[in-house]
Amino acid sequence: MNIEETLANIKPLDQQSMDICKERWDSIAKPLHSLGKLEDIIIKIAGMTGNHHIQPIKKALVPMCADNGVVKEGVTQSDQEVTALVSENFLKEKATASIMCKTVDADIFPVDIGIAVDTSIINRKIAYGTQNMAKGPAMTRSEAISAIEVGISMVEELKKKGYKMIATGEMGIGNTTTSSAMASVLLNQPVEIVTGRGAGLSREGLRRKVDVIEKAIKLNRPDPNDAIDVLAKVGGLDIAGIAGLFLGGAALNIPVVVDGFISAVGALAAANICPEVKNYMLASHMSKEPASQLVLEALELSPCLQCDMCLGEGTGAVAFFPLIDLALAVYQGMSTFGQIDLEAYVPLD
Amino acid sequence: MNIEETLANIKPLDQQSMDICKERWDSIAKPLHSLGKLEDIIIKIAGMTGNHHIQPIKKALVPMCADNGVVKEGVTQSDQEVTALVSENFLKEKATASIMCKTVDADIFPVDIGIAVDTSIINRKIAYGTQNMAKGPAMTRSEAISAIEVGISMVEELKKKGYKMIATGEMGIGNTTTSSAMASVLLNQPVEIVTGRGAGLSREGLRRKVDVIEKAIKLNRPDPNDAIDVLAKVGGLDIAGIAGLFLGGAALNIPVVVDGFISAVGALAAANICPEVKNYMLASHMSKEPASQLVLEALELSPCLQCDMCLGEGTGAVAFFPLIDLALAVYQGMSTFGQIDLEAYVPLD
Repeated sequence: MNIEETLANIKPLDQQSMDICKERWDSIAKPLHSLGKLEDIIIKIAGMTGNHHIQPIKKALVPMCADNGVVKEGVTQSDQEVTALVSENFLKEKATASIMCKTVDADIFPVDIGIAVDTSIINRKIAYGTQNMAKGPAMTRSEAISAIEVGISMVEELKKKGYKMIATGEMGIGNTTTSSAMASVLLNQPVEIVTGRGAGLSREGLRRKVDVIEKAIKLNRPDPNDAIDVLAKVGGLDIAGIAGLFLGGAALNIPVVVDGFISAVGALAAANICPEVKNYMLASHMSKEPASQLVLEALELSPCLQCDMCLGEGTGAVAFFPLIDLALAVYQGMSTFGQIDLEAYVPLD
Repeated sequence: MNIEETLANIKPLDQQSMDICKERWDSIAKPLHSLGKLEDIIIKIAGMTGNHHIQPIKKALVPMCADNGVVKEGVTQSDQEVTALVSENFLKEKATASIMCKTVDADIFPVDIGIAVDTSIINRKIAYGTQNMAKGPAMTRSEAISAIEVGISMVEELKKKGYKMIATGEMGIGNTTTSSAMASVLLNQPVEIVTGRGAGLSREGLRRKVDVIEKAIKLNRPDPNDAIDVLAKVGGLDIAGIAGLFLGGAALNIPVVVDGFISAVGALAAANICPEVKNYMLASHMSKEPASQLVLEALELSPCLQCDMCLGEGTGAVAFFPLIDLALAVYQGMSTFGQIDLEAYVPLD
């Protein structure tokens, strides 16, 4: 599907499935809504999939991997080579996210959407990295759209393979810089409010990062009402791919899980393109990156995990998967009040 | 072990094991402390067990089950019979906590420490429920100590069986009332601040609950500097048993996981008896009961899960178990910077 076909396929949540799902929760022998967000998540999944009979969910993590021209400005502690190195490690179970995937029985599909060198992971390369946004637009509008469509096509492929939930992840040195630039524009917030130290910048490094982002925004003047323009001018191929995963998930009735800051900015871009997409997102964790809370609030999402994680790769989204399994096990397996001869709880006021 | 022997065995955390564990985390190829609390938890476990070689952790949930005389005052929506009914369901995989345990591969050991009728779960009954604290002390000091020692003996037994981590849980109609009474006394907070709707009280029910707790405290005058006195006068056998689990865990180098409000009050009682015990506790989730945050802050604990759960039974603690497995998988299995030929991240300022 191209982006127009995708947008045409995005429908509101199925209210009837959600109502039946909520009825089932309320009939289960436990205090009303006592599993809190775990109940809400299953209800939301029923609405997304149009089915209250939720089966065990086969899960995938898709880390979008790409390089960013802006690293030439010295905004990162690591060199650009690390992007390819870690991306290759995803398939060797040598990256944190791949070890976590194995632990929770999820499969990982790392995508080379724009790494600066050739790699052996799934090849959907749009370019060998972006241009330096401090000197001009990071990419063309057409490249941004192609990267979004890579995300959409990944959802199509994974759905065909039987996956029923997709976690978003990323690997790309410099991508907290592009994410902060996009968050600043899309949320209309000052750059210093939405910029953190990424993988470990010094104070001076943080100052430089803020300066570079301010310069890039001033130079490229992205249109805050056109997320594709923002992606193209001050974003990255990884973030565009992630936005595509969210759009594809919404069109294909596949719940897509937000990871940390970078992934949340991809989600924000998707929601800017089509607000309905918010309903097909699941939050996972509150990252330690300072702007995460602002972005998640804009998406009206409230995550379950507060672990101060900021590793990226999709690690927060994968850490959230076991909560889905737990919620589902209770939803499917737990007795109702009638079955165990208990009087139901009554909501009184 | 009796309570005196237990207290004599509680030692500070092993700093050397914690230092070696932290060194290992910092050598792993990922940004420093980017797994946040997940790293801290493993370091704390190294300190508790005196061993930085942490093996896969066999886990148990111990729901302490007991009845509370105060239910005669009409402070609950459910009848007292529900305590025995749900307690029996733990072993039939018909209770929420037992379904969750099965999902995360933990074993459940429900203990009848004071249910009002005979049951078929582990029998450590101290009494057929407590007395009505609105008319006099809930139990004698000697009963409170015996209940604490039940908790200690459960840790001894489970350690012998090879369990390396224990989650606390409970079942007992009326036990948010006793927990709020204890929290009010131990935290020196007004009753209305630490009292919530439990499993679903009406506004009027909540007002009655607050009145009953205030009456019980005024009548019994528990000594806030003597948690055993507080347990005996306005607590419950379940909470005393939970306090014993925490004391036993600290003495036997077994990490014990705090569940929600009731469990946290048991932890607070244990920490009041011996402050060092705080170091052997792991937080799991922030319950929706209003006083949870106050109690966890007093324990200097910051939970990973924020799911608005308030089901009890140990469900929050069990939902936290997969995060331990994830943290441990990365700690054990992830490559170091040297192994994957990456330069280490440097903390700069």
